[in-house]
Amino acid sequence: MKVTVSRKSHFNAAHRLYNADWSDARNATVFGKCSNPNYHGHNYELIVSVKGEIHPETGFVMDMKILKDLISIEIEEKFDHKNLNEEVEVFKTLNPTAENIVVVIWNQLRTKIDESLELSVTLYETPRNFVSYSGE
Amino acid sequence: MKVTVSRKSHFNAAHRLYNADWSDARNATVFGKCSNPNYHGHNYELIVSVKGEIHPETGFVMDMKILKDLISIEIEEKFDHKNLNEEVEVFKTLNPTAENIVVVIWNQLRTKIDESLELSVTLYETPRNFVSYSGE
Amino acid sequence: MKVTVSRKSHFNAAHRLYNADWSDARNATVFGKCSNPNYHGHNYELIVSVKGEIHPETGFVMDMKILKDLISIEIEEKFDHKNLNEEVEVFKTLNPTAENIVVVIWNQLRTKIDESLELSVTLYETPRNFVSYSGE
Amino acid sequence: MKVTVSRKSHFNAAHRLYNADWSDARNATVFGKCSNPNYHGHNYELIVSVKGEIHPETGFVMDMKILKDLISIEIEEKFDHKNLNEEVEVFKTLNPTAENIVVVIWNQLRTKIDESLELSVTLYETPRNFVSYSGE
Amino acid sequence: MKVTVSRKSHFNAAHRLYNADWSDARNATVFGKCSNPNYHGHNYELIVSVKGEIHPETGFVMDMKILKDLISIEIEEKFDHKNLNEEVEVFKTLNPTAENIVVVIWNQLRTKIDESLELSVTLYETPRNFVSYSGE
Amino acid sequence: MKVTVSRKSHFNAAHRLYNADWSDARNATVFGKCSNPNYHGHNYELIVSVKGEIHPETGFVMDMKILKDLISIEIEEKFDHKNLNEEVEVFKTLNPTAENIVVVIWNQLRTKIDESLELSVTLYETPRNFVSYSGE
Repeated sequence: MKVTVSRKSHFNAAHRLYNADWSDARNATVFGKCSNPNYHGHNYELIVSVKGEIHPETGFVMDMKILKDLISIEIEEKFDHKNLNEEVEVFKTLNPTAENIVVVIWNQLRTKIDESLELSVTLYETPRNFVSYSGE
Repeated sequence: MKVTVSRKSHFNAAHRLYNADWSDARNATVFGKCSNPNYHGHNYELIVSVKGEIHPETGFVMDMKILKDLISIEIEEKFDHKNLNEEVEVFKTLNPTAENIVVVIWNQLRTKIDESLELSVTLYETPRNFVSYSGE
Repeated sequence: MKVTVSRKSHFNAAHRLYNADWSDARNATVFGKCSNPNYHGHNYELIVSVKGEIHPETGFVMDMKILKDLISIEIEEKFDHKNLNEEVEVFKTLNPTAENIVVVIWNQLRTKIDESLELSVTLYETPRNFVSYSGE
Repeated sequence: MKVTVSRKSHFNAAHRLYNADWSDARNATVFGKCSNPNYHGHNYELIVSVKGEIHPETGFVMDMKILKDLISIEIEEKFDHKNLNEEVEVFKTLNPTAENIVVVIWNQLRTKIDESLELSVTLYETPRNFVSYSGE
Repeated sequence: MKVTVSRKSHFNAAHRLYNADWSDARNATVFGKCSNPNYHGHNYELIVSVKGEIHPETGFVMDMKILKDLISIEIEEKFDHKNLNEEVEVFKTLNPTAENIVVVIWNQLRTKIDESLELSVTLYETPRNFVSYSGE
Repeated sequence: MKVTVSRKSHFNAAHRLYNADWSDARNATVFGKCSNPNYHGHNYELIVSVKGEIHPETGFVMDMKILKDLISIEIEEKFDHKNLNEEVEVFKTLNPTAENIVVVIWNQLRTKIDESLELSVTLYETPRNFVSYSGE
């Protein structure tokens, strides 16, 4: 009897799409205004979901307060009000597309969440663009 | 060719998290302010989804008016403007966490919806906390 | 040149509508299921707006971090996860309708916000029911 | 390592539920006010999701601008501000229920999206009624 | 001490923008695809707000259940699942723009709501287009 | 008989809060992480409202398509996917707080909208922080 528990959080950040192996011209052609060298930014909305058995004593799959704090420490403190390209180590060499960000977040959280729980992450870059990853 | 049909509804209720096998002190430690003996409450948002073949004559998987009425009778009338711990029989002995509530709702609806249809239920306790169950 | 700055926050609480001067029967007749003696509850969404001149040095009417903290201390800590009728002093004798709650919140914040700033408060009891008060 | 990329768009249209093989009376009985011969309408919200590997050079599963333009050309231009029963060929003989519309949209997009990408579509007929199809 | 009480409701309808005094060509030029002779439609969201003194006995400006029922009878029953141009008398000769609809709704409700209460109405034609009227 | 017509749009941008007359230390003290020299960003949501008489021939206060295009040309093209501090002339010397941005937008639109129409602008910096200006 497995239930999925989800917690929504958010962070604001600047980024630009950029492949360091390409010329500036090719970056501009492929990524358009998303590659503006002066950066632009988003209010990212993040949904973290864990799936597992309900613990019979607590009635919890996972205490949402613990999940909330985990997201705060592992993701919000590292990403919020940051320039992703300049200030988040992994994105110095990895293009911070929504797809790459969601995989980075999943990998970061996966090491901190009990292995018995399945993990999936959804990231809204804008209210109209979003991505999901569940480690498959 | 299976389509999933979803209907969103809601109910307002009071509850507290509480394990009757524990001391008050342990309840307070584990559940914090969610265990306030005087209760607190939520606007629960409920999404009920049924998946099945489209009926060739009606173009429906399930008539949404029937699904709406079923949710109203089976869930809203029993939970809306109620104290879950005090007034919903099952929660007199089962801790009304979001996880337990979503399983109770799924079990209640499962007996009323045709077996050929798959059923899943998502329950928002707040706009930032939600749970899902599909009978697995 | 006056700008209005608004901050949205929320709290979850239990309440019942109840006039202590009336019989139980009259309370039930007038307030219906909202008067359930066992309480029900809501996720209240609160919007606090202050209007004033932009300070030329900061570019702020009021620092939103200060406004956020003020709402947290003055309202959230007192109302969140509480039973309004039982645990918030003023509602022991004042019926906690949305109208009365919004006036209580406005009065509480008015004493803490600089007099040069106009104050208005909007309170959502549900996504479909809300009230506003600006001290007029 | 497969990520799902989703794009939300919308169109406004008129429709009525109607089975041409049935009498008017039976249409009225089964579909109620949804079968009003003078039509009614909706703001349809559409979410198109594609799942696949992240391309190592771009960091994209699929360029969202391309996905956005594809939805615009294939769906919005054909459905927006139209009468679905009268002006969209397939619905002259197929009842435009939400279920049938979502399958039509999926079929239309499936031919235009690379076969290596999985496709699923969710269609909101109203904020409370929605359907999903993924080709199963 | 005046509080504003608001109630959100909705209706789905078909319409077209059309001025009967103009040629079809001019209608097409001015109103574009909104003048499609086969109609299109919307999920209209309606917010009705009344402002007045809090009644000391009830704590209400106006009982929201009564306001909800009034909107249902006066507006939803007349507009929901209707073709506004064909089936709502006033729009047979009045172009059903959002502006004209909101004034018609305000006029209809004004006669049914106590004169001591101020009335304002907001109508969302889409999530991005909306209009307000308060009788000024 | 004046109706208010509103149009919602959006743009994504990077910015930092910064007063060039202050030391870096004072900027950091007053603006905190919002003053990060590497910038952060937001999905800004913008609501532009114009109030005026309904034109008897069109039924419009102002054609929303024209309003939409005006916002696109005057605001979106200048702000979207930009670094406000670096790339929008006025913010090279004016701190791009939400308050200052909303006044700049209002001033920019005021010159392009007929003087007979009242103008007000609301800007959401995040879903929880927003500002409004109407030229008073």
